[in-house]
Amino acid sequence: MTDEPRHELAHLGPHALRTPDPEGTLRYFTGLLGMDVVAEEGRATYLRAHGDYEAWSLKVIAAERAEPAWVSWRTWSPGALLRRTEWLETHGHRGRWIPADRGIGPWYEFTDPDGHVFRLYYGTQRHTAPPESRPVVPTNHQAYAGRGANVRRLDHVNLLARDVRACREFWETAFGLRTYEIVRRPDGHQEAAAWMSSSIQGHELIYTGENTAAQGRLHHLAYVVDSREEVLRAAEIVADARIPIEAGPSRHTAIQGFYLYTREPGGHRIEIAHGGYLVFAPDSEPHIWNAEEWKAKPGWGAPLPPEFHLYGTPPDGTAAGGDGER
Amino acid sequence: MTDEPRHELAHLGPHALRTPDPEGTLRYFTGLLGMDVVAEEGRATYLRAHGDYEAWSLKVIAAERAEPAWVSWRTWSPGALLRRTEWLETHGHRGRWIPADRGIGPWYEFTDPDGHVFRLYYGTQRHTAPPESRPVVPTNHQAYAGRGANVRRLDHVNLLARDVRACREFWETAFGLRTYEIVRRPDGHQEAAAWMSSSIQGHELIYTGENTAAQGRLHHLAYVVDSREEVLRAAEIVADARIPIEAGPSRHTAIQGFYLYTREPGGHRIEIAHGGYLVFAPDSEPHIWNAEEWKAKPGWGAPLPPEFHLYGTPPDGTAAGGDGER
Amino acid sequence: MTDEPRHELAHLGPHALRTPDPEGTLRYFTGLLGMDVVAEEGRATYLRAHGDYEAWSLKVIAAERAEPAWVSWRTWSPGALLRRTEWLETHGHRGRWIPADRGIGPWYEFTDPDGHVFRLYYGTQRHTAPPESRPVVPTNHQAYAGRGANVRRLDHVNLLARDVRACREFWETAFGLRTYEIVRRPDGHQEAAAWMSSSIQGHELIYTGENTAAQGRLHHLAYVVDSREEVLRAAEIVADARIPIEAGPSRHTAIQGFYLYTREPGGHRIEIAHGGYLVFAPDSEPHIWNAEEWKAKPGWGAPLPPEFHLYGTPPDGTAAGGDGER
Amino acid sequence: MTDEPRHELAHLGPHALRTPDPEGTLRYFTGLLGMDVVAEEGRATYLRAHGDYEAWSLKVIAAERAEPAWVSWRTWSPGALLRRTEWLETHGHRGRWIPADRGIGPWYEFTDPDGHVFRLYYGTQRHTAPPESRPVVPTNHQAYAGRGANVRRLDHVNLLARDVRACREFWETAFGLRTYEIVRRPDGHQEAAAWMSSSIQGHELIYTGENTAAQGRLHHLAYVVDSREEVLRAAEIVADARIPIEAGPSRHTAIQGFYLYTREPGGHRIEIAHGGYLVFAPDSEPHIWNAEEWKAKPGWGAPLPPEFHLYGTPPDGTAAGGDGER
Repeated sequence: MTDEPRHELAHLGPHALRTPDPEGTLRYFTGLLGMDVVAEEGRATYLRAHGDYEAWSLKVIAAERAEPAWVSWRTWSPGALLRRTEWLETHGHRGRWIPADRGIGPWYEFTDPDGHVFRLYYGTQRHTAPPESRPVVPTNHQAYAGRGANVRRLDHVNLLARDVRACREFWETAFGLRTYEIVRRPDGHQEAAAWMSSSIQGHELIYTGENTAAQGRLHHLAYVVDSREEVLRAAEIVADARIPIEAGPSRHTAIQGFYLYTREPGGHRIEIAHGGYLVFAPDSEPHIWNAEEWKAKPGWGAPLPPEFHLYGTPPDGTAAGGDGER
Repeated sequence: MTDEPRHELAHLGPHALRTPDPEGTLRYFTGLLGMDVVAEEGRATYLRAHGDYEAWSLKVIAAERAEPAWVSWRTWSPGALLRRTEWLETHGHRGRWIPADRGIGPWYEFTDPDGHVFRLYYGTQRHTAPPESRPVVPTNHQAYAGRGANVRRLDHVNLLARDVRACREFWETAFGLRTYEIVRRPDGHQEAAAWMSSSIQGHELIYTGENTAAQGRLHHLAYVVDSREEVLRAAEIVADARIPIEAGPSRHTAIQGFYLYTREPGGHRIEIAHGGYLVFAPDSEPHIWNAEEWKAKPGWGAPLPPEFHLYGTPPDGTAAGGDGER
Repeated sequence: MTDEPRHELAHLGPHALRTPDPEGTLRYFTGLLGMDVVAEEGRATYLRAHGDYEAWSLKVIAAERAEPAWVSWRTWSPGALLRRTEWLETHGHRGRWIPADRGIGPWYEFTDPDGHVFRLYYGTQRHTAPPESRPVVPTNHQAYAGRGANVRRLDHVNLLARDVRACREFWETAFGLRTYEIVRRPDGHQEAAAWMSSSIQGHELIYTGENTAAQGRLHHLAYVVDSREEVLRAAEIVADARIPIEAGPSRHTAIQGFYLYTREPGGHRIEIAHGGYLVFAPDSEPHIWNAEEWKAKPGWGAPLPPEFHLYGTPPDGTAAGGDGER
Repeated sequence: MTDEPRHELAHLGPHALRTPDPEGTLRYFTGLLGMDVVAEEGRATYLRAHGDYEAWSLKVIAAERAEPAWVSWRTWSPGALLRRTEWLETHGHRGRWIPADRGIGPWYEFTDPDGHVFRLYYGTQRHTAPPESRPVVPTNHQAYAGRGANVRRLDHVNLLARDVRACREFWETAFGLRTYEIVRRPDGHQEAAAWMSSSIQGHELIYTGENTAAQGRLHHLAYVVDSREEVLRAAEIVADARIPIEAGPSRHTAIQGFYLYTREPGGHRIEIAHGGYLVFAPDSEPHIWNAEEWKAKPGWGAPLPPEFHLYGTPPDGTAAGGDGER
């Protein structure tokens, strides 16, 4: 354990989605989730949630189909950024440097074993609230407007992977992410799901099994609200906006987060989430569910519909990822 | 409308359950729901919830099988009690007077068209908190102990009936209950469910279709907690107590109450509930769902399991009801 | 008690405020409280909250100073409207009929013993949601937009009166309102406050002592949200909008409602409220606080600032009330 | 920054209180806060909260007066424990090793600049739930009983210090704690308060100014519940148990936690808390309040009573600390 690269990543950072319905996608993130547009440039629109300390967090890119473009991690220090990129380059995961984008970056872009595009960065730009949205308490990043579900920030990212175990081991080895729960397949070796984090939060990065031939697909992005009561309130808002609800509100067995799954108009599955346990023990071992225990789903929480285990974006085929025009 | 007997009933009152597992049933209502035992006498145990103004509200009777014994309504006045009993006697629903039971009554006992036993009463006894549970705010009925789900009072009663429409019309005609929602069967005449109330609350008495040959069965009793958050908390409590959860936490389409359905150890289905709309308009018409609209279940809320529409108590056969030994 | 006019009033209905800052007042009610403008006409703007079944509920009138114009009650029936107006005319409280206003009315306008203007009506117009705000669940009155504090409806009205006892007795005698709590002054006869209701809700109409020479003043209007959590959320919203918070969030001793008091830009004190007990007993007696018990404020809840007992609208002098130009 | 001992401490661990009323103190922590007694030994009783992963967290010691005995931190690794104790010994803060206590330890005991006794440890013992309190979801540490306020774990510790700045700098330098907020005194150098943490949580260790001649005093311990709704619920429970409420429920300006302050029967101030922001930025600078800004208390939240800034335990004089008999 002493050789593990502990505490090199600080938190999930900006992330980008490609959407075939940019107008619908932006209406969803601003009108229903309560995020703000901070800039537009060509096919890209930059947004932020009220709890983000950085200048922007979500880049929506007009494209031919729904697919994840990339997800990023901010490192704990400039040194950590260099150490991690060096590790990637010397361990067969060579990526490339990408210049800063609207104040955040430069970024080192690379792929995980399933082909999802990730970025690492340290340099960032803090959000400075303009006068009309300056918060009255200076430790907030902007005024609290209370529009729609009013999400606070990105909570976690769930990716589909053909080999969950390989992805999990990649993040543990290369970045020191901690794994809090694992679902083992009946063979006792392969894995159906893994929940990982860079902090005491129960999950930041989740891998679940890809049940098609595709690669690099997104299962969902989850944005956090301040209480379970606000998840319930969000259900009312999205239902009346005729946004399809796929599952919830209910509670997951793994990590125990309270969830509401919707599909934004572009097709991506978006979760509105609250809670999940915190892990304080520095020496906690992952909880491993074998196939039978997992199937029994102890505790409370509604069953998930079959499509929850099948649908991802792009709905059909492999994701290419990245910012580029396509 | 002018001839309708408006405002004759004030609220649901004491109610009684027969149970084959009195120890388990009492442990459920006291340890998990947070009610208190106020008296024991022979095969009967009397309980109350912290929000009840009356001396007791639930009578648990040791019996051979799970069945509802009776449900009561308190009338608005002594005059209303006489008017309603007279109506029953002159309209072919003759019942009988039963002496007061531990300070509450006398009661007039009769049956609805499906054979469920009901009681009417006016005379009651207010709860006087003993020193050890005297509330600090004198408008409360007892101190707030916060044990388990800590239900405040009975919220509503749901009975199964072979002819929902006949039952609904009986209560409208005889007692002036208001009906807030009705589900019509595909034939456009028969009814699958009806939600009725004596007050602005969306439901106190519900009838849903009996899908077996039985009569007089109970679908569930619902006890209310103070917030949806407390319904979620109750799910944690009952799950860890290994009490089966049949459905929820989620929200109903009709009346929009937030629910958690459990089975107490004796076999009765018990709901822990919060919310449901209030009806202020004195001239509101029932909302009528036709079969297709109802099937579409608009809005959010999890689907109910098939057994929800089949199970009742007694699980097998017709309920006899009443306090007597059996 | 048998002669009391029970159940003649159904609920508080539309109400009107005069404001010297109509733009600020409207911005407060729409942007922060989440109400919608449904019509404008001359100096008047008509608004509704998402839980109102009627076409409109709040009329904001541009005027020289902040004062309450009028508050209304809907009667239970056309007959109740005639009975009550006849009572008023034959007991020295003659008022006048006013034609319907945007579908609601005609109204009978009269004053209480302190000079506040009230209206009675039965005829109303239900809200029909336009396509863009049609709710997905048809028992809702409009789609749930989740803008700002998103109040559901008017909860209660608190008026200042020089003689609280006279006002209380007027409503009990003339309209059968029930009084749930009374604060007695040290003389054991005069009253400092009274909480009254037409239903099982703990308060709809409150009188508290006027400590100046003025008459007919408004202490506050209270709008209800769906949970205490939403009252806390509202505090964040109004604080960041630089709306002054006078008190709360905290809980009142009387009726036990959870409160947040703000001043809207026109100067009226507006409460964002949730909760308060329900009274089911048809024969409940008012809880009477003597001066010492009241001063002791048992239970939890923050102390109220001195201005809470002094400020009302108009801030200076007597309210004239009514819709007319001034 | 590169020389700072980052990530050496994992979390606050067991802590001990001396009480002159052990029976009352235990009744408070078990009956009202919902903690469990796991062992008794001589004058000491060991308790745990349902969210603690360790075998025990609170040691209550019968003593002559109320005073804090000690507070502990678990280090991230055995190496970190050795590095920190070496630093202390070579920088003039020599302490002493204390053997393990009921499975947790050995501990290195030392004092902060104000004389409060702290302990460092790495070795611990996980809680294994006995059959009667085994949780249904295996990632929980024990079943959720829902007794009283049902606190989940210790959230933070607030100590009084004559020189807040010296204490803050001690923890930053020796242990790499991060400081998220500071209140500067009017002189622009001395500090009135500092909020520090070993993780993304806004506060674990707080120092506020000691306004008497005493040393080593405790301001309060804070235990966390799962929602603001549960803090409100806790107010009801402690009020009805006649436990004095000193302040709240309301919200703090610093860190923005929702609070309820009580005095347990032994005299210690105990907070029941929820929330407070998370700090994700690895390079966040402390927010520094100057005296005027701080006095203005922007945002919402009730004022604190004067005694909040004066009372601590021991109420009179300097705390000695430690486990020993006295």
